[in-house]
Amino acid sequence: MSFSKPQPFNPRLDLLLERVIDVPVEKVWAAWTVPEQLMRWFTPAPWSTVACEIDLRPGGRFHTVMRSPDGQEFPNLGCYLEVIEYRKLIWTSVLEPGYRPAKLSAVSDLDCADLAFTAVLTLEPVEGGTRYSALALHRDEADRKRHEDIGFHDGWGKALDQLVEYIRSRS
Amino acid sequence: MSFSKPQPFNPRLDLLLERVIDVPVEKVWAAWTVPEQLMRWFTPAPWSTVACEIDLRPGGRFHTVMRSPDGQEFPNLGCYLEVIEYRKLIWTSVLEPGYRPAKLSAVSDLDCADLAFTAVLTLEPVEGGTRYSALALHRDEADRKRHEDIGFHDGWGKALDQLVEYIRSRS
Repeated sequence: MSFSKPQPFNPRLDLLLERVIDVPVEKVWAAWTVPEQLMRWFTPAPWSTVACEIDLRPGGRFHTVMRSPDGQEFPNLGCYLEVIEYRKLIWTSVLEPGYRPAKLSAVSDLDCADLAFTAVLTLEPVEGGTRYSALALHRDEADRKRHEDIGFHDGWGKALDQLVEYIRSRS
Repeated sequence: MSFSKPQPFNPRLDLLLERVIDVPVEKVWAAWTVPEQLMRWFTPAPWSTVACEIDLRPGGRFHTVMRSPDGQEFPNLGCYLEVIEYRKLIWTSVLEPGYRPAKLSAVSDLDCADLAFTAVLTLEPVEGGTRYSALALHRDEADRKRHEDIGFHDGWGKALDQLVEYIRSRS
C-alpha cells in the first residue's frame, strides 16, 4: 500500500507549528506514542493529562483526558489514520476508532471538545535534532479561526516546550 | 505499518450487504478501482455514473458524479483510508482527500448527499468466486436509519447485480 502525498499548508484553512528542536526523532516519536510518556507533557500546565490510550495503527484509538486546575475532566477521542514510525503520525477527531464517523457534539462543555480537525505530525532528522511540524487541517475558515482563538499556537507551542523539557530530563 | 482490526458489524449502527458472487476477486477489485470500469455498474439504472476519479491510496480522492434519469447531476466526494489490493477498500464521506474534515452540507439537494458514513468493502476468494461484503458505518441510529430509508440494501444490491453482469459480459 502506498501512502498519502505530503499535505500542503493552506494558510486560509490550516494552522501550522514548525520548529527545530534539539532532541532526536526517536525520542520525540516515543513521547507521542507511549501513553506514560505522552501524559507527562501533552497538556500545558497547570492543566494536566490524566489518562491516555493509544492503539498505534490506522483505525486505532487515540484517547486522552485533560484535567483543568479546578479538577474538571475533558475527554478527547480520535482515530489514527497513518502511522509511519519516526516520521509521520496522522489522526482525526471526525472519526472514532475503527473509522466510524464521530459524534462531535455535547461530549463536554469545553470550547474545543467538538472541534473538527485532522492533525499531521511530521518529524525529520536534522543536524543536532528534529525538524518538528504539527499541521491542523480544518473544513473551513471558521473552524480554523476558532481553533486559533482557543489557543492553537500558544497551546501546541507550550506543549512542545514541555515535550523537549521532558526528553531532556530523562537523558 | 500494521493495519486496522476487522470491523465488527453492529446492527444498531451499521448496514451490511453480504453475498457470494461467482466472479473472481481480482475482477471485482478492478471493477471498484478502475474509473472506466466503475462507471459501468456503480449506479442502479436508470441512473448512471457520468464521472469518476480514483487516487487509490490512503488520503486519496474518490469522486463520482451520478446522473438522474431527468439529467440532474449529483457529485459525491470521499477519501480512501485503507487500500489492501484484492482484499479491502475503506473510504469515508466525512473526510475530503488529504484527510481534511469534509463540509457535509449543501453539496446538492439529494437526500444522501451529506450522509456521514464510512464504507468497508471486503473481498475473500472462495470456491467458485468471491465472498463480497459491503459494510456501512454510521455515527448513530438516526443516520443508519436514514441510509436504510434512502435505499441502502436495494441500491447496493442492484449495483452489485450490475457489477456481476458487467464482469460476465467482459469474460
